[in-house]
Amino acid sequence: MVATAAQHISALQHRYRDEVQAALHSAMACSDSGFFSLLRYHLGWEEADGKPANIATGKGLRPILCLTACEVAGGNWQDALPAAAALELVHNFSLIHDDIQDRDTRRWGRPTLWTVHGEAKAIAAGNAMRVIADHTLMTLVRSGMPTALVSDVAFELTGRYLEMIEGQYMDMSFEALDDVTVEQYLDMVGRKTGALIESAMYMGALVATSDREQASGFGACGRQLGLAFQIRDDYLGIWGDPAATGKAVGADIRRKKKSMPMVHLFEHAADTDRAWLDKAYAQDGEIGGEDVEQILELLDQLETPTHVQAAAVAEANGAMETVDSLGLTGSARETVQAMAEFFVTREK
Amino acid sequence: MVATAAQHISALQHRYRDEVQAALHSAMACSDSGFFSLLRYHLGWEEADGKPANIATGKGLRPILCLTACEVAGGNWQDALPAAAALELVHNFSLIHDDIQDRDTRRWGRPTLWTVHGEAKAIAAGNAMRVIADHTLMTLVRSGMPTALVSDVAFELTGRYLEMIEGQYMDMSFEALDDVTVEQYLDMVGRKTGALIESAMYMGALVATSDREQASGFGACGRQLGLAFQIRDDYLGIWGDPAATGKAVGADIRRKKKSMPMVHLFEHAADTDRAWLDKAYAQDGEIGGEDVEQILELLDQLETPTHVQAAAVAEANGAMETVDSLGLTGSARETVQAMAEFFVTREK
Repeated sequence: MVATAAQHISALQHRYRDEVQAALHSAMACSDSGFFSLLRYHLGWEEADGKPANIATGKGLRPILCLTACEVAGGNWQDALPAAAALELVHNFSLIHDDIQDRDTRRWGRPTLWTVHGEAKAIAAGNAMRVIADHTLMTLVRSGMPTALVSDVAFELTGRYLEMIEGQYMDMSFEALDDVTVEQYLDMVGRKTGALIESAMYMGALVATSDREQASGFGACGRQLGLAFQIRDDYLGIWGDPAATGKAVGADIRRKKKSMPMVHLFEHAADTDRAWLDKAYAQDGEIGGEDVEQILELLDQLETPTHVQAAAVAEANGAMETVDSLGLTGSARETVQAMAEFFVTREK
Repeated sequence: MVATAAQHISALQHRYRDEVQAALHSAMACSDSGFFSLLRYHLGWEEADGKPANIATGKGLRPILCLTACEVAGGNWQDALPAAAALELVHNFSLIHDDIQDRDTRRWGRPTLWTVHGEAKAIAAGNAMRVIADHTLMTLVRSGMPTALVSDVAFELTGRYLEMIEGQYMDMSFEALDDVTVEQYLDMVGRKTGALIESAMYMGALVATSDREQASGFGACGRQLGLAFQIRDDYLGIWGDPAATGKAVGADIRRKKKSMPMVHLFEHAADTDRAWLDKAYAQDGEIGGEDVEQILELLDQLETPTHVQAAAVAEANGAMETVDSLGLTGSARETVQAMAEFFVTREK
């Protein structure tokens, strides 16, 4: 069943891929300014010296969810391509700025944009990426979507953007706090990751049906799927197979990342363990190898892996309940089900 | 005549001010998140500790130009308030990011946002400001503007945003170059400053008339006014009265700012002077007091002040020719004339 879900997603990915790439290239063709070279570098289309490249970048999750929602809601997925491309560009805008904010130096196996061109220009490149996203979204009108509906979508999207940015802010604020609850953490992730995935399914369904209520249902499903995806991501950041994830064992612990397992641990650790944890986190630099071992031990004692995985599955189940309330059946339902299963069982 | 122009502008400023402030407050009321405290600090509405404040910030140029364009094009200026507020917010988005990019530590007599909350959060605050701007713009529909027209405006605006960001990028790139021509400099400033002011007059006129061609004429006038404003700004940055501008004499020279006078000097200096200049600029840190004197002397020899002022006046005259081609007469024409005069004669 797991293999089937993964195969199902892989098939969708392959089916959409070329046209999503074409839509992205068409969106990026709006200027021939040398400035765009920075954006093309980030997207993996160019080397730092401007030579053409073809680097494998992200999973393209948001376009897939958008186009799938369009299809399962009975639409022609090609009609949603402007929305899919816009979402991928917005996601990349946030990655460019995230890398600056988090001081991350590597992404997709190469130096991050800000390390190549400096922060100031990378901030500008991120901003340009978002403008191009907006521009691309508005071309939905050319796919025949009524102007009033495109306008509503754009308005709706600004609300989700704002949530996403607030989520990023909360994430940064949480770094300085040591009493974040799992509930607060999920609220933050719902904004930071969930809001844009909600938009993806909302827009895909709206292109298909022009029915705002139906589209909102898909949006709610998307938000839950986004949470499921992120929680599983947090799981893999600690217990994932390094060969599959490309991350060292316990990488997120080493980097003091307050992902869901760590928030769970801080919330539930016994007082003495908690005092030890606070001390380990108060020290400068990364967590040392022995302390990582100790933390993994504590996580096991609290059955944190089970709790975290159960939380991911609960979100995925919630997404399916939402889908059922929309009356989705047959192969359409199976597609969403495969997506939900894949999100919580994936190994990378 | 100068006094009259200044009085004319001051009267407009006073007339619009309260309602523009109300529109900004209403736009910012879309979230009660603690995050918004950063945005309110930047806008001068709060102290860093969250206590209410009422700090005098910018000139509110873009709202004034937008509302004036609406009025002189025969509209009801209140209808353009969402556009005016959106422009002010976009302008502030760019200021928040500019301060980070330029490492500026003071704005409007207080520490810049990034120095108070760190770069990462200030980047997020700038992004949020832009989202709120977009959101606000879309409320033009509620003022009765047809959806299709609002959608067109939003589409048009994305093009101007992109120009603005490209202009910022060009500005940063120019810092590393020593052979920027005045022509290239004006192209950069047209994007960085002109594009948004073009939008201001374009949108104001469009709200009034719903006539895209007429609005584009106003937009072209706005772009020229924006250039006139910026060139005069560059003039004042070197030869302005410190008591009026709040900047020390030759402040822009000291900071090695490649404003129009300096670009003119680098372009026209004799070979020996140019070699000396290159050396002075190649040294780390600010330009020393004696060298500033020497540069002021060179600028005078080349009659750079006259050239720069003439360039500002030429743009202002161009703006008036554009306005005449639109058939503007009587008090409407007088208002734009006052604006154009004020922009090139202002002392602060």
